[in-house]
Formats: sequence, C-alpha cells, structure tokens
Amino acid sequence: MSATADDREQRVLDIIETARAKRPRFRDERITLAHGAGGKATQTLIEGLLAPAFGIAELADAAAVEDIAITSDSFVVKPLQFPGGSIGELAVNGTVNDLAMAGARPLAITLAMILEEGLGADVLRAEVDAIAAAAGAAGVAVIGGDTKVVERGAADQMYLSTTGIGRIDSRGQLAPHRIQAGDQVLVSGPIGEHGTAIMLARNEFDLDAEIRSDTCSLWPAVDALLGVAGADVHCLRDATRGGVASVLNELARAAGAAIVVSEAEVPVTPIVRAAAELLGIDPMYVANEGKLVAFVAPHAAAAAVAALRAVPGCERAVAIGEVRREPPGMVLVDTSFGGRRVMDQLVGDPLPRIC
Amino acid sequence: MSATADDREQRVLDIIETARAKRPRFRDERITLAHGAGGKATQTLIEGLLAPAFGIAELADAAAVEDIAITSDSFVVKPLQFPGGSIGELAVNGTVNDLAMAGARPLAITLAMILEEGLGADVLRAEVDAIAAAAGAAGVAVIGGDTKVVERGAADQMYLSTTGIGRIDSRGQLAPHRIQAGDQVLVSGPIGEHGTAIMLARNEFDLDAEIRSDTCSLWPAVDALLGVAGADVHCLRDATRGGVASVLNELARAAGAAIVVSEAEVPVTPIVRAAAELLGIDPMYVANEGKLVAFVAPHAAAAAVAALRAVPGCERAVAIGEVRREPPGMVLVDTSFGGRRVMDQLVGDPLPRIC
Repeated sequence: MSATADDREQRVLDIIETARAKRPRFRDERITLAHGAGGKATQTLIEGLLAPAFGIAELADAAAVEDIAITSDSFVVKPLQFPGGSIGELAVNGTVNDLAMAGARPLAITLAMILEEGLGADVLRAEVDAIAAAAGAAGVAVIGGDTKVVERGAADQMYLSTTGIGRIDSRGQLAPHRIQAGDQVLVSGPIGEHGTAIMLARNEFDLDAEIRSDTCSLWPAVDALLGVAGADVHCLRDATRGGVASVLNELARAAGAAIVVSEAEVPVTPIVRAAAELLGIDPMYVANEGKLVAFVAPHAAAAAVAALRAVPGCERAVAIGEVRREPPGMVLVDTSFGGRRVMDQLVGDPLPRIC
Repeated sequence: MSATADDREQRVLDIIETARAKRPRFRDERITLAHGAGGKATQTLIEGLLAPAFGIAELADAAAVEDIAITSDSFVVKPLQFPGGSIGELAVNGTVNDLAMAGARPLAITLAMILEEGLGADVLRAEVDAIAAAAGAAGVAVIGGDTKVVERGAADQMYLSTTGIGRIDSRGQLAPHRIQAGDQVLVSGPIGEHGTAIMLARNEFDLDAEIRSDTCSLWPAVDALLGVAGADVHCLRDATRGGVASVLNELARAAGAAIVVSEAEVPVTPIVRAAAELLGIDPMYVANEGKLVAFVAPHAAAAAVAALRAVPGCERAVAIGEVRREPPGMVLVDTSFGGRRVMDQLVGDPLPRIC
C-alpha cells in the first residue's frame, strides 16, 4: 500500500471515528412531525436509533448489492395533486433520483400502495397513470408491488412506497468521503420550487402565484456530469426535504469539511423569492424534487457546469460555493451584504408532508 | 427448435392468451377494504388497473432483474404486536418469504416507515429491535430506508414498507406455467395460525385461546426443497392474505389447470380448528405468515415432503392434493364426508389489516 493510500485510509477511518463520536442519541419520548422533516430530529432518529440497530455504517440515499443500487422511499405528500405534479410522479422521480445520486442508471421500480377505504377510483386511476407516465419518461419499468387498504380515517387518501433498482455507472466514484477542500459546489438550477408550490397548493396562504413543482428525473443531469467529469465528480445529492441547506450540512459533517456558499450565486426565481419573503422562509431550506447539488474537483467544475446547462431543465446550473478545510462540519454563507453567517441544520418542521 | 420446445412455447402463449381473455375490468367507484384482502377485488384491482397501466405481463410475488429478485410489500397489521410476532417481524419475514417463493436466497432488505405523529418512542424502538432480530434470523442485512411522519390521525401508529433483494438460486425453475397435471400439492405445516392469532389479539371475540402467529422465514424450507427436488419443484407460494384457498385459486387460473384438495389431509391444529368453527370461518381462507404451498412433480413428492419435515417448523409438511387437467382454473375439494365442492376465490374481506 502506498503512503497516499495509507493516508487516504487513515482519513476515512478518522472520519468514521469522528462520525461515531458525534453520533446523536435518540432520546425523544414521542415521534413528532420534525422526525420526518429531514433536519436535526430526522438525523437523530436515523443515526441514533435506526443505523445502530441495523448496523448501517454509511448513510446514503441508495445502498448497493454488488453493482446494483437499491433505494426505498415513502411518499405522503399533501395534497395529492399540485401544480407541476402529483404524488405518483413524485414517487417515481424521487426514487429514480436517489439512484441517480448514487451514480446508478435507473432500471426499474416497485410500488407499494397504502390506500384509504373510500378513496375515489378516479383519484387512484389518475395516480396510476401518472406513475406509468413518469416511469416511461424516466426510462424505468414498474416491475411489481403491493396494495394494502386501511379503514377510513387510518390513512389520508393514499401513501406510496417505492423502491428503485439501478446499475452503478462505472464512470462515477461518488461518496461523501471523496469531498475535499477546493471542490466546487454546483446546483443544477433555481431552488425552492417544489416546497413553495406545495405550500401555495394548500391554500394556507393568501398568495396567488403560479409556482410549479420542479419534479423530474435527474438521471440525464447525472449522465451529463459523469460524461464530462467522471471521477472528478466527488459526490451528488438531490436537495429534497430540508432543501439545499440540509444537504450541505449533512455532507459537511460526513466529509469533515467546511462548505462556504456565496449567497449571491444561489439561483432563485423572482416568484419563489417573493413567495419565500412573504412566507418568511429561506429558499435554501425549501424542498426541491428536481435539483441536485454536485461536488466537483476545481479543474473540472467549469466543464461540469457547461455540461449541466446543456440538459433540459438545468439551463441555470451554476457554482454556488466551495469546500474548505476549516471549520470541519460547518456550512457558512457569504451574504450579499458582505457578511458571513452559519447556515445551520433545520430544527423542527416548517412544512410537513412535502413529499 | 425441437417439437417439444415448440409445444412448450405454444402452451405458454395459450396460457397468456387465456389470461388476457379473462382479464377482469376494474369498474369500482371507490376503494373498499376488499381491495386489500387478497381475493377477487384485489385481483380485479391488480389485473384490471395496475398490470395493464404498468405493462406487467406475469404477476408474481417478486420480479427479477437478471439473477437479482426484488419484491416489495407494505404492512399495516393491527394490532402492532400479537402473540408470536409484531409488525416488524412480519415485515421482514413477509418480504424474505416473497423472495424465497421466487426461488431466491434473501440477501438484503430496505425499510420505509410511515409514522404517526405522537407514536411512542418505545413502540418504535421495540419494532426497530424486532426488525433487526428478524433480519438477523433470516440472514438478511437492512441496507437502507426512509422515514416519513404524518399528522396525528393520518395513520394508525405505524406502517412499514419493505423491499427484499435476493439472488435467484440456480437449482430452481419456478413459475406458475410449470404447474402440470399430476403435480402434488404440498403444504409446509398446519394452516390458519397467523390470521386466527390476529383475530384473537383484537379481542373482538370472547375466546380465550393461545394461538401464536406462525411468522418465520421460509427460505430454509425452500432451500431444502430445491436441494432434494431441484427443477421438479414447479411452483411455490406463501399462503398469506386469503390463505391457502386464494393461492390455489390464483395458481389454478394462472396454470390453466384444476387443483383437487383432499380436505382430510389439510393440517390444522385442534385449537385453530376450534377457533375457526366458533368464528364461523374456513381455515383454508385464513392468512399464514410462515407456511408455503409447493407444486412438485409426482416422482419427487415423497422426497420433497421428507426434506421439508427435516426443517424446523415444517415437521407436519404433507401432500394435500394434486393437479388435474380438467376443469381448468378450478379448485375442488374432496370433503371428509365423501363429497366434492368448489373452493372459490374469497369475495369481500373477512379480516382487514391482517398483515
């Protein structure tokens, strides 16, 4: 083993050790909506209870059995249909995207449905059609599934659980521990659209704006990135629950590195920005369903951005920050006003049942 | 292509044609509990809506991508804990068993949880531990998952969705179309235990009997069967929702054959028989979670029964009937009193949320 390989192994061991030392304990007495929000409480539940019980060392959106990647998700979005998509599309794209983030080309999905007694057959039919259409668009087959029905009042219309199966693309070598100082942090387009669309669709706010969910398959974007930058793409994440801020926090911790974001570079459409200001939320914490965050070696970053911009839906891809050595585990933001602040993990749940 | 291969292909085409011609239409206006019960309504939903929308030709408990078998299930059992098991054990064993029925050695599972706000952490912890223990006993790793939380009242404590990944064992060639006249129909032990245990656990009946769910991994039984009979095992199914009667009906239709069951041979423990009589139900329609039905070529049947009986939990394995050519698609029962009756598909749902 060369000195470099030794160093690398030591670094990985150090990171695992650090992660272990920092493993949070799950001490809550009851489950709250915050445990499902993708922030600190979710992390505590996963790292404090689930991962140790199941002996899972590395937490990722997809696991691998040889070169087959597998990922599972549940979808409980409310309402079932919203501008730009519906629970069925979300289930397919969300699942396909978890595979894509693992560098795996999506092949097939399975679908398990929990239906509430009394659900309209037209509602079910519409979602079945949406699933079939989204699967077709993403190039995956629906190969099986399961249906359960619970009594009226024991579910809210329908919940979907999907599992995706993909083949890991040999061009990629994606892992949080490959993130290193100097890496450029890219986003594939304007953020915050899905979460804002859901908030508006719930009519809880008196705001008449046309914002559509960005739900779509991200495999074409990943395919383009791996094609132009290959192993120089160090890590990928789709910025779903908890938004870009949560992804950056999770990866800063996992990589034992700092991430500095330049606020002025973060793409947000004027309408999402306006809605976010009215609602008093930061778009960085709002869920996306068709946007990825990529960590790319500095010499490959410009080509990666250019390749992304050639993919439909990613025309506004851009570098928003970079990885630094210090302070490890922290995400910092250089604000548009010349200041610097910490972008912390989400605490609590600003918006339950976003996906 | 030899004449035999031609014949075989023609037979498969005929079966597919027959199945197509008989495909039921999904015309219901609302989802009812019967759609989740594993009987006629479930079949109509799956074959009339889901299979055509997703272009799924053959319906099985597990699908395959090359030599990797995949299966997905949801679990909504009520109560969460019952004599002999709990929702967590059921989720692991149910998933592992779907793989085993496809002749696949279980390797790993993923776990997606939908939790109700307010769920006690102790309840969650108990199920996480049950999942870990059942996975350990079944020799599978829990490799990933997802957690969603819905508001109080939008779920009943917790629902689990699991996906299993297995490797198809090269000794097996299992498929409904391999079932042929003369095949012996085996069950791996006494039937009706799981469903009866759940019914009693709900305290809806004033009956004080100690009946435990039979939930367990069936891979050891399948391993033994394939070891002794290999390709002479033509088809396997675990007799879950809808019981042995539903499995036989589904396979008689799929194989275009008749199945004749000898009622006197069907193993039922005295306590399950007594409970079933009091409750006015036929154990043949009651769910099992650790019993399989095997179709085995006649010359290999005795060895298959002997091999099963050497597996812990299958000591009472026995042949209960055989496959005939006529009348295709029908299940007939030779009763203990010398008569013969049709054992039809389940209509309606005698027991919702059994798994």
